[in-house]
Amino acid sequence: MTDKTITIDVRKDLFGANEEAAAINASIFEQHGIRAIDVMGSVGTGKTMLIETLCERLADKYRILMVAGDLATTIDADRVASHGVDTVQINTQTACHLDARMVRVALKKVDLSKYDLVFIENVGNLICPAGYPLGAEKKIVVVSITEGPYMIRKHPLTIKRSDMVVINKVDLAEALEFDVDSLVRDIREIDATLPVVRVSAKTGEGVDELIRVLDL
Amino acid sequence: MTDKTITIDVRKDLFGANEEAAAINASIFEQHGIRAIDVMGSVGTGKTMLIETLCERLADKYRILMVAGDLATTIDADRVASHGVDTVQINTQTACHLDARMVRVALKKVDLSKYDLVFIENVGNLICPAGYPLGAEKKIVVVSITEGPYMIRKHPLTIKRSDMVVINKVDLAEALEFDVDSLVRDIREIDATLPVVRVSAKTGEGVDELIRVLDL
Repeated sequence: MTDKTITIDVRKDLFGANEEAAAINASIFEQHGIRAIDVMGSVGTGKTMLIETLCERLADKYRILMVAGDLATTIDADRVASHGVDTVQINTQTACHLDARMVRVALKKVDLSKYDLVFIENVGNLICPAGYPLGAEKKIVVVSITEGPYMIRKHPLTIKRSDMVVINKVDLAEALEFDVDSLVRDIREIDATLPVVRVSAKTGEGVDELIRVLDL
Repeated sequence: MTDKTITIDVRKDLFGANEEAAAINASIFEQHGIRAIDVMGSVGTGKTMLIETLCERLADKYRILMVAGDLATTIDADRVASHGVDTVQINTQTACHLDARMVRVALKKVDLSKYDLVFIENVGNLICPAGYPLGAEKKIVVVSITEGPYMIRKHPLTIKRSDMVVINKVDLAEALEFDVDSLVRDIREIDATLPVVRVSAKTGEGVDELIRVLDL
């Protein structure tokens, strides 16, 4: 195998401009006293349900805005909006991640003085969003045990570029005979100190712990 | 919601060069009498297990090569190689999809006269690979019911650009209380005639049907 392994270098020209835009977003959030969380993860890992659960538990403490990124549809924003949360949808059509400029365009559509917590749900993709900071104070990546045992090892850069890993759907671990500890070990191989929280957005297990670790 | 929906246009400059490279790959496959299948789908949807199962059932009929695309690791190629199948790993580092040029570099590493069927397992990503044809005769997309109910509606372009949808992990439908028919209806909304095959790569259910529909 090894002698047949080919490594393709990829240019990183685009990243500089995004970093600048992200820094501007960060200063906009700061000016308005807003805390912002970038929620990344592949499709179907439960990002939206996690944000719904967080919004329910934090509704008395924060005025919350959700910025939803998807190629198409307003399904996720509509779900969160049904909890009484204000939402802005960004439809990226073909773009596989949000970038900082898109988020700034979205933020211009709302009165930021009305909010003190923003959840940005990134496009469902475990790869590309990690390379594009949006100006949020934390980038968290949601993985699901339904993604199989290798998703951490295959995505070391995403883990390195995240401030926290949320392992979701732990309620299914027994039914799927899935070893959650092995995922945690894989994370530890990449980053010895990265916060890892095990949750079930569906049952609510671990969500209070997540709120504590996020310092919300 | 609707008045807050923002649509971001994305340039498509890169796609032309890839289409040319894909046409060259297609002619290389044709010269060698090789049939090639591009297997797309998000991380953890079971692409590798499906290829393993197909290789087992087709081993007597075809001399098979597997080209595996991942950001990092040779896990998938090693799994398929354990069935006695020759493999080539492409590690893309940060690139979120294979492109036709990468595949051509990989094909140069092997003696193509030794094969008559090539499975190309794309990088685990439901979005980007669909925009980059590799020269395969068919692009199939593997979705898993563990990805939740919205993955089809959120990815109309991926569906439109695929020649077939494989719905995997149908053995879990009852345990997850998942309505597989609803996914098929979503596909039908996007393409009225696209072949759809329901399988469980784990139990083998539907795999013979998939082989029939692929005309293998």
